[in-house]
Amino acid sequence: MRRIGVLISGRGSNMLALADAVATERIPNAGIAVVISNVTTAAGLERARERGIETVALDHRGKTREEHDRAMAAELRAREVDLVCLAGYMRLLSSWFTREFEHRILNIHPSLLPAFPGLNAQQQAIDYGVKFTGCTVHLVDEELDHGPIIKQAVVPVLPDDTEETLSARILIEEHRIYAEAVALMLGGKFKIEGRRIVQRQ
Amino acid sequence: MRRIGVLISGRGSNMLALADAVATERIPNAGIAVVISNVTTAAGLERARERGIETVALDHRGKTREEHDRAMAAELRAREVDLVCLAGYMRLLSSWFTREFEHRILNIHPSLLPAFPGLNAQQQAIDYGVKFTGCTVHLVDEELDHGPIIKQAVVPVLPDDTEETLSARILIEEHRIYAEAVALMLGGKFKIEGRRIVQRQ
Repeated sequence: MRRIGVLISGRGSNMLALADAVATERIPNAGIAVVISNVTTAAGLERARERGIETVALDHRGKTREEHDRAMAAELRAREVDLVCLAGYMRLLSSWFTREFEHRILNIHPSLLPAFPGLNAQQQAIDYGVKFTGCTVHLVDEELDHGPIIKQAVVPVLPDDTEETLSARILIEEHRIYAEAVALMLGGKFKIEGRRIVQRQ
Repeated sequence: MRRIGVLISGRGSNMLALADAVATERIPNAGIAVVISNVTTAAGLERARERGIETVALDHRGKTREEHDRAMAAELRAREVDLVCLAGYMRLLSSWFTREFEHRILNIHPSLLPAFPGLNAQQQAIDYGVKFTGCTVHLVDEELDHGPIIKQAVVPVLPDDTEETLSARILIEEHRIYAEAVALMLGGKFKIEGRRIVQRQ
């Protein structure tokens, strides 16, 4: 049984998608060991508890970034998590944390990285006028939205799209590829060649 | 009858694809008025002549960028071209030229811009480890590989891809969307909203 820790700051839609994927065994032989939020009022905490998932609220205020991350790491280690999944976690991680869990932290970003890193990626795509965008699951390294790519999915940008309609189209793909990426990483059937993560058959 | 001018520096594969699209009326009511190369030995010149297309070799050496571009512009104006298509033209255009033909210069680039601008875009995509890349037809402005996007197409990056296999997969899409983009621009059924070019039905 592999153990997943999820970090959130808000409603945790991708956390719930991972919980569904675990429950339906699209992510086989795994469980969500803990959901940690740096925002104590995050809606995702209640939604996780409703599903019987353990939650921890760790307010980041009044601590340095590394102090906060060490507190999170202690909670993750206490539950022996194999993989840390960011799901709308809205803070940068310290270098200490990314090194401590190297190659074991995943993030999902709503663009085809390296295009449109950072906040409001969907609106960035609309403003730039691209015809396709999508989402990316990647390993987290010390640079924002930068680590090796595990999975991507493509969606069209339609002429009448607003940030809301485009975000909704991308979110469906986020939920799908995040589960696929977690299953791939926990299954161990991949190799890392430089920045390239190649699935082994 | 709308008139297209094509700028090349090499074999001009996209120039030949445009010639085919004109001949088969996927670009309707249009002709290639002239192919201009800054490299006098470019293979594309001979291949254009074989199809009965007028060619001009204008060596850029010994001239400033703007002097060279003014000579090209004179050839284009003498033939009253409506649209200038770059097809493997390996020099930056002067600001004078891009202003003189504003909104009437197209380029094709072998990536999903804004990802991987500049040279060797296919190898850049492989090295970054993206799962999808593609090609982009865009209006040329004063910044490299930057202007408003007219068409894009997506292709997968496969685990065993080399620069050659990936480039070949993208090139098929380049030939398709370049013809579609030229037909769209010459047909006039579009509107420009900021950076967004939206096809009118």
